[in-house]
Amino acid sequence: MTRELPGSPLGLHRVIKPAGALPQAAWRLDPSPELWPDETRVRVDRLNLDAASFRQLTEAAGGDPDKLRAAVLGIVAERGKMQNPVTGSGGMLTGVVDEAGPAAPLGLAAGDRVATLVSLSLTPLVITDGLARWDGRSEQVPCDGHAILFGRSIAAVLPDDLPARLALAVLDVCGAPALTSRVVTGAKRDGGRPPVVAILGAAGKSGSLSAVAARRAGAGLVIGVVPNQSEADILNVTGLADQVVITDARDPAALAEAVRSAGGPARVTVVCVDVPGCEGGAVLATAQGGTVIFFSMATSFSAAALGAEGVAADVTMLIGNGYVPGHADLALDLIRAEPGVRQIFDSRTAEG
Amino acid sequence: MTRELPGSPLGLHRVIKPAGALPQAAWRLDPSPELWPDETRVRVDRLNLDAASFRQLTEAAGGDPDKLRAAVLGIVAERGKMQNPVTGSGGMLTGVVDEAGPAAPLGLAAGDRVATLVSLSLTPLVITDGLARWDGRSEQVPCDGHAILFGRSIAAVLPDDLPARLALAVLDVCGAPALTSRVVTGAKRDGGRPPVVAILGAAGKSGSLSAVAARRAGAGLVIGVVPNQSEADILNVTGLADQVVITDARDPAALAEAVRSAGGPARVTVVCVDVPGCEGGAVLATAQGGTVIFFSMATSFSAAALGAEGVAADVTMLIGNGYVPGHADLALDLIRAEPGVRQIFDSRTAEG
Repeated sequence: MTRELPGSPLGLHRVIKPAGALPQAAWRLDPSPELWPDETRVRVDRLNLDAASFRQLTEAAGGDPDKLRAAVLGIVAERGKMQNPVTGSGGMLTGVVDEAGPAAPLGLAAGDRVATLVSLSLTPLVITDGLARWDGRSEQVPCDGHAILFGRSIAAVLPDDLPARLALAVLDVCGAPALTSRVVTGAKRDGGRPPVVAILGAAGKSGSLSAVAARRAGAGLVIGVVPNQSEADILNVTGLADQVVITDARDPAALAEAVRSAGGPARVTVVCVDVPGCEGGAVLATAQGGTVIFFSMATSFSAAALGAEGVAADVTMLIGNGYVPGHADLALDLIRAEPGVRQIFDSRTAEG
Repeated sequence: MTRELPGSPLGLHRVIKPAGALPQAAWRLDPSPELWPDETRVRVDRLNLDAASFRQLTEAAGGDPDKLRAAVLGIVAERGKMQNPVTGSGGMLTGVVDEAGPAAPLGLAAGDRVATLVSLSLTPLVITDGLARWDGRSEQVPCDGHAILFGRSIAAVLPDDLPARLALAVLDVCGAPALTSRVVTGAKRDGGRPPVVAILGAAGKSGSLSAVAARRAGAGLVIGVVPNQSEADILNVTGLADQVVITDARDPAALAEAVRSAGGPARVTVVCVDVPGCEGGAVLATAQGGTVIFFSMATSFSAAALGAEGVAADVTMLIGNGYVPGHADLALDLIRAEPGVRQIFDSRTAEG
């Protein structure tokens, strides 16, 4: 069943309030299942909450699975999408295409198994099973329901050669290695030599992918920063970083000194940790004229802007855009080719 | 009177809580007047609250000057600095150097009339006159008190040929024209032709400076976006933009269409408006492969990151760093050379 009037490729027709907002910025969307002609409806089987959101929700619920389920259900019922009101972030989903409208441009057909590459924070969503199959211990949330893709949304058909759970986790962060690759390539070109790259949170999912992307893009030295010995052990075993340092990324002076002593300061610093308060340290760990890429949804805009100014740091600071052309294929290629990254993803996406 | 132990050039020794934070990120600083050897103390005569902070405080106080004074005094008393807890931002100050510690590297001497180029959000501050001379109607706040500059803080000696009030307002936003100039220069070089530049809030202070900086850096077309006819009149009279469009920057589809019809999409979009919710429109108004520079302290990191991803926009998004080498001199040169910008500043910094 589809509607007759054309929709907006951006999904503006699904915004209930405030009027005129884009779906991502809106407070509430219309998630009803009837399609506008260029939309596609997906039968959802799994949500993958973003790390910053899952952490915030878990802390707010005191770790209680019932409270956590109620919180997610409450948000989706109230907003028509899964957007954490505190972090503003969402995550992504997998499912099977149910119906594509007659004018849908995404190239998807009923029966295709897909992952969305646009955030849950702008995707109309209805959950119908009360999240009964979710134990609340993992950001991967089995569920039944439906979601709507707009004309300009992005979705990837899941590859046959990788477990769905793994592919979903990779696609969720695929913007990070793609943008890291682009920035490191540019730094090498402009600087005339292979740049030093520091990855904060290098033993995590976006961090490990970014580390190998940096190396492949021509980094001269990859410094992996992790918060504790167990993550350092993972990095050392997998060999994803040339240097591994253990430090609290929220302690600016300690972070800058740790990166310096490992071969820094960095020409490119990539922030992949999901805790607040890493802006100042990332800036201080970066050489004058260098670049910081913030991928963490816990990043504070004003803390970064004023923090750099406050220490007279001439660094370029990038808001990590989740979309770079070719990002899905690049990330899936990395997980196939790099056993160290695969190992990290397997351990972090194991059934909780 | 100075202390004996060396301080940290970053001011870490002034942080009361949380321990280890940089002064900008700290909740509370020690603003006591005794100097560490590399510090400089300034006798403050005026604060210049940043636009986003002043707007938020004014709205929270319902426009009541007594409540506004009490709010600012309360923040400074509690935090030891003027950092708006909601926006995270501060502003800057002017004053006269009172004493420079024996190891102070800033090149300032007692009696120098200066403006700070680091944010109030990291500057230890004590107010001693109860803000009795402030009418609460302007972000420029006459006051008595003292402030502390660290070894790595930045301050500019105020020029003799410009009124102090004007110089302060120019220096407050001097990072914007400097970074705009750098980005437009790069876009022209990489794109092979003069880029289209859109300035959101072009009739404001940072906007007007950024507009002329863009033109001088080689923009092919400068599109000034303003919210109403009176600001359009200002822009038209001053001639700072080649095209002037009136639209609400918070309405993404309307903004994108307005910029397109004026000669866009933009290769470089500069966000100088101090209201929240302009992220999506700025992204949509920008060409694929283009750059958005966010100078507004009202910018939401997650709204920008997820908004770009949500519309599959391959745009580079920069956090507007307030520090670029040479920024103060560039901005002061622009205000001297460009009567249109001077006119805007004079009208916006007139005694309220």
